[in-house]
Amino acid sequence: MEQEQVRIAENILPKYTLNEEQERKEILRQYRALLRALREKLKRGDKELVRTAFKMAVEAHKTMRRKSGEPYILHPLAVARICVEEIGLGVRSTICSLLHDTVEDTDITLEDVEREFGSEIARIVDGLTKISSVIDASSSQQAENFKKILITLTDDPRVILIKLADRLHNMRTLDYMKREKQLKIASETVWVYAPLAHRMGLYNIKTELEDLSMKYLEPEAYKDIARRLSETKRERSRYINEFIKPLREKLVAAGLDFEIYGRPKSIHSIWNKIAKKGVSFDEVYDLFAIRVILNSAPEKEKEDCWKVYSMITDEYTPSPERLRDWLSNPKANGYEALHTTVMGPQGRWVEVQIRSKRMNEIAEKGLAAHYKYKEGSNDEDRFDKWFGQIREVISNQDTDSVDFLQDFKTSFLAEEIYVYTPKGDVKMLPIGSTALDFAFSIHSAVGSKCIGAKVNHKLVPISHKLRSGDQVEIITSNKQKPTEDWLNFVVTAKAKSKIKDALKEEKRKIADEGKYILQRKLEGMGAAYNQHNIDVLVDFYKVTSQLDLFYNISVKHTDLKELKEFHVLGDKLEAPKPIKPVVEHKHETETKTPASKKDSELIIFGESSDKIMYNLARCCNPIPGDDVFGFVTTGKGLTIHRTNCPNAAQMMANYGHRIVKTKWAKNKEISFLTGLKIIGIDDVGVINKITNVVSGDMRINISALTIESGEGIFHGTIKVFVHDKEELDELVKRLMQLNGIQSVTRFDTEEKAK
Amino acid sequence: MEQEQVRIAENILPKYTLNEEQERKEILRQYRALLRALREKLKRGDKELVRTAFKMAVEAHKTMRRKSGEPYILHPLAVARICVEEIGLGVRSTICSLLHDTVEDTDITLEDVEREFGSEIARIVDGLTKISSVIDASSSQQAENFKKILITLTDDPRVILIKLADRLHNMRTLDYMKREKQLKIASETVWVYAPLAHRMGLYNIKTELEDLSMKYLEPEAYKDIARRLSETKRERSRYINEFIKPLREKLVAAGLDFEIYGRPKSIHSIWNKIAKKGVSFDEVYDLFAIRVILNSAPEKEKEDCWKVYSMITDEYTPSPERLRDWLSNPKANGYEALHTTVMGPQGRWVEVQIRSKRMNEIAEKGLAAHYKYKEGSNDEDRFDKWFGQIREVISNQDTDSVDFLQDFKTSFLAEEIYVYTPKGDVKMLPIGSTALDFAFSIHSAVGSKCIGAKVNHKLVPISHKLRSGDQVEIITSNKQKPTEDWLNFVVTAKAKSKIKDALKEEKRKIADEGKYILQRKLEGMGAAYNQHNIDVLVDFYKVTSQLDLFYNISVKHTDLKELKEFHVLGDKLEAPKPIKPVVEHKHETETKTPASKKDSELIIFGESSDKIMYNLARCCNPIPGDDVFGFVTTGKGLTIHRTNCPNAAQMMANYGHRIVKTKWAKNKEISFLTGLKIIGIDDVGVINKITNVVSGDMRINISALTIESGEGIFHGTIKVFVHDKEELDELVKRLMQLNGIQSVTRFDTEEKAK
Repeated sequence: MEQEQVRIAENILPKYTLNEEQERKEILRQYRALLRALREKLKRGDKELVRTAFKMAVEAHKTMRRKSGEPYILHPLAVARICVEEIGLGVRSTICSLLHDTVEDTDITLEDVEREFGSEIARIVDGLTKISSVIDASSSQQAENFKKILITLTDDPRVILIKLADRLHNMRTLDYMKREKQLKIASETVWVYAPLAHRMGLYNIKTELEDLSMKYLEPEAYKDIARRLSETKRERSRYINEFIKPLREKLVAAGLDFEIYGRPKSIHSIWNKIAKKGVSFDEVYDLFAIRVILNSAPEKEKEDCWKVYSMITDEYTPSPERLRDWLSNPKANGYEALHTTVMGPQGRWVEVQIRSKRMNEIAEKGLAAHYKYKEGSNDEDRFDKWFGQIREVISNQDTDSVDFLQDFKTSFLAEEIYVYTPKGDVKMLPIGSTALDFAFSIHSAVGSKCIGAKVNHKLVPISHKLRSGDQVEIITSNKQKPTEDWLNFVVTAKAKSKIKDALKEEKRKIADEGKYILQRKLEGMGAAYNQHNIDVLVDFYKVTSQLDLFYNISVKHTDLKELKEFHVLGDKLEAPKPIKPVVEHKHETETKTPASKKDSELIIFGESSDKIMYNLARCCNPIPGDDVFGFVTTGKGLTIHRTNCPNAAQMMANYGHRIVKTKWAKNKEISFLTGLKIIGIDDVGVINKITNVVSGDMRINISALTIESGEGIFHGTIKVFVHDKEELDELVKRLMQLNGIQSVTRFDTEEKAK
Repeated sequence: MEQEQVRIAENILPKYTLNEEQERKEILRQYRALLRALREKLKRGDKELVRTAFKMAVEAHKTMRRKSGEPYILHPLAVARICVEEIGLGVRSTICSLLHDTVEDTDITLEDVEREFGSEIARIVDGLTKISSVIDASSSQQAENFKKILITLTDDPRVILIKLADRLHNMRTLDYMKREKQLKIASETVWVYAPLAHRMGLYNIKTELEDLSMKYLEPEAYKDIARRLSETKRERSRYINEFIKPLREKLVAAGLDFEIYGRPKSIHSIWNKIAKKGVSFDEVYDLFAIRVILNSAPEKEKEDCWKVYSMITDEYTPSPERLRDWLSNPKANGYEALHTTVMGPQGRWVEVQIRSKRMNEIAEKGLAAHYKYKEGSNDEDRFDKWFGQIREVISNQDTDSVDFLQDFKTSFLAEEIYVYTPKGDVKMLPIGSTALDFAFSIHSAVGSKCIGAKVNHKLVPISHKLRSGDQVEIITSNKQKPTEDWLNFVVTAKAKSKIKDALKEEKRKIADEGKYILQRKLEGMGAAYNQHNIDVLVDFYKVTSQLDLFYNISVKHTDLKELKEFHVLGDKLEAPKPIKPVVEHKHETETKTPASKKDSELIIFGESSDKIMYNLARCCNPIPGDDVFGFVTTGKGLTIHRTNCPNAAQMMANYGHRIVKTKWAKNKEISFLTGLKIIGIDDVGVINKITNVVSGDMRINISALTIESGEGIFHGTIKVFVHDKEELDELVKRLMQLNGIQSVTRFDTEEKAK
């Protein structure tokens, strides 16, 4: 949310030109800046420790350079500065930051680190090492690695804070990377790291990560908004000053010690609003935001915030829908503040945030600031609770990692709601949680027996979505047991894993019956019931485990009549040779596509005679001119997606190694189907005007057209064959020029067109 | 909302037993109490004026007695005391109250009043006279009268305040009336007077009117809730004391001057919640409410309220959904306060109202208190604005009165929302208002040309419902004009009347064309175009006006070919005798039913051989045992409704003269169809269990049964033939005893069963 300055969107890469002497000076300059930032935190002996770590890192990385050409040591130095200056970490974290890449990339061993700095630092460096060794290797799955990060995180949260600083610096210097690497890293950042920063309460870092990701994933939209913000900057400043003036006077008169200032909204948040509301930049109606920071004594801060609220609303009328009291109910990440939106001069809404200095520091430095203020307070620690929940889920997990990552996101990185037990105790749950999630959060035995709930005394089904403030009473029955369905009714990782456990347990019980049947059958044939024979059958029936084999036998999915065709040699079974296997489901056979081998090969496609097997993703319908990437799909070859495809971030974050760089061939012969959604004011002849532009002026083929109108507004969708993005953009431009047309937007799939 | 004490529900009428001397003493006692209440407001000479009025009223009413047997004068005295003590009115209103029935019912004339007290008081008494003369006469329509009240109201609001006091006293003494009179008056009260009291900001009076109405309209539910409240009173008091204790200590420690106390919720509001949420009394989860009244200086009161909010939410967690800031945005009726709901001990929600003494007085005494505090403030007066709007609409009205009353209710008595113009100016509109209402509220020319709007910069159709805080920009087109449809898109009386005017204007234009056609036709026949001949045609074609005749001719609805059959004598038309008239719609002919003549006759029905024509209303499906009334319907005889039919209040309030008292005959032979809605937890055999109870145990005929279940909850409806309410109640009781049944409720019509 916060951001000091609109960043320049243009990518002008400075050529690296320093000589050795200049380099040496720059490294020292950075080191001294680090020490200055750390000054207040240095105790006796600390300075020497930091110097030792610095020397160790300089020595270890001395032959290495970054992609930009800089000496590598500048990176650990920058990460250390972010940790100290932007996250508020101390000496130990600084040392770990300086060393975070040494064990991974240089000759230094973990033992060296431990010998020099002790076991605490060695453990953190070890955590960071594991992480980077997996994250950056495109050969293995990121999701698996992320799971490892989380395991380390719950040991020592500093691991994740340093990792976030590392990621932030990498994002700030992403320009030097190749395009597909940029896409991969940016996707991963927006998919996991920004939400993680948010969850840790690091609002500034979260915002910067989002903005930087957007710069690479949506370069055009990013540049466009940045340009418009810079064009309107002067006017906006004038407005904010006018808005603030009477408030400042009142607050001064009341004898308050405060700061008040305007804050620009982040590019990413503006873009989000544009996309979500379907409006244009000019129509984003709450571009204005101010913040009041109060320097109040701890016991007065809440009261003072309300006092300021009262004074501001004396001056400007607030919107009743948008008052948020995070003073009485802090967010799960520790965020405290008072938000409101008031009607400023000229009919413009202005968002106002009111908080104390302490709250502000927590909003900016998150976890670290939280621990700082925690001492002496008997408030149960929110983060410790959170880590505890994560630990519980991780220890229980044996699902595959991609599922796990998805679960983790919805369980632990989502905004939270809080609900009450019948006794009035508060439970925090991720947004979207159901009565069933609540039941499992009480106890897995309550969850498994849940048949419904009373929410605010009203009977609701187990799938009922909860809202903040609901009071929930679970109804159980001893006859109840979890079913496959239930997995669709829950979002929390805990509930999911408990349901899966229960289903597996159930399956195991049923399988026992099958095992018994098989045993008798084999004995009847004179064959032994042993591992060898079971493996032969698992192979023959093409199931993945003996559990499945037993289960299928028990539920009569596998009826064992083929056993008659088997030979028995001694007590060993032998499968019949030429028999047609009974296949339950036709499994797609894995094929190696040409693309999957050559990771960085440039694929040129869109030509009339295609040399490689590819298809265009149905989720985003790319057309020539769109920024695209290829995704290797088992059995289907290459699928081409737009880089701003709704699924892109997830694919790139989870399966970075399957991403292939792609480019369109110039070809004006083939046309591609795409869709436009048109909204406007209904008028006589409007359809005619639209088709005139499309078929008449532009000579574009229409594949389908629907127009529905009601009460003076029409909604239309039109599917057209265009040759490339240029042609599509021209069409949109011309349609927008028609009288009464309100918006023309491209839509990706039929499902997405609302 | 407010209420001092749970009133006793039982109707025990004290026998009137005073002798003449006792009566004289009682009258004097009341009169002295009135003077005491008025003491602070008496200026020089006022006391003599009041005494003169009192003497005049005593003399005028001396031979009259109320239904209870009391001397009539006790009624004007009681009304005067309500005006002074509960509404905060002064000397002039007291005089008017004392005289309010004299001109109507006694020999005193308006001239007598004017001679004695001057023109201001005479005008108010005149207003009150008009009102009562029409309201109480069952021969004419109440709605028409109400319109007259409103016209007077906008002259002098005291008329309506005294009228409310009069109604309140009549409601308090309603026990002495006959049942059908009780129903009529109670319906009228809940339909119009309670909302009016609410709109005038008289919360206490509104609540008492609602509770008293419910006592007569829903006697069983009323008694039930009153009993349960009194049973739980001790426990609730203990709880509230426990809840308040730590708050009181904090507020005292902060040096605030305040009162804090629990307030019981009104019976009517509890009943409303039970009905709306479909829960039982035990499940109404916010029975607890407290109020904090601050004695703060005017410039500190808002700040202090927030301070108290901050302190209370330090102690108890508030529900984020239920914070209402009516300090920054007072209600249209002037109400200011801060409401929140917090989680108290034992998991119970407690509603908290925080307001200053001034705000509290406005909440209790409404309009009168508002004027008291208004002096010196430059706040534009909300009530004056409101009166202005009413005046504008009334002066424009030529629709029929029942429509008008409905429009008035939705336009002026509904809760209000406020929305913003593009420049940020606030507009108050009744809840449910659309973009089109907004357009008409700006100007009728904007309304007539409206083709859509942008709400928060998003294009919406004219029928789009607005919400508080919306910013609305109207889009107009010169080609636009109002259509019949539009009447469904608006709720404000102003918009409705402007649309109707425009439609009429349009019709007039079209009619002009028809007039011209007719003129030529008549001339061609040698007949004159004059009023006589036009009347002959209006009569012949069975239209209601010459405008309709011209219009029908113009749009070819009437093709005038029957004119050939007419005779022309001189220049006069004469209609053909035996011709079959062309009837567009079959009008139901009015029939006098036996009931309509004998207003107070007791109709006994439900016997197998019916002596009178009646039918059971489909909207509420009454069965023997239900409390019912008969409603005389043109052409259909008597329709029997339940007194708690959803349409009852409106019918009784608008057409009191058509209500007939009815009673069921004892008859066990005929059975009546009624429906039950059953909700519960799905279980094997649940349908079987239900049908067992109905057909097996109770031997009740099932006409239809539907059960839908999903995710463990089932919703069922069952239609059964029962003989009377007793049998139905027994069935409900038995069904509720089944395992897993959550609720069994009677439903009235198929449409109502959700």
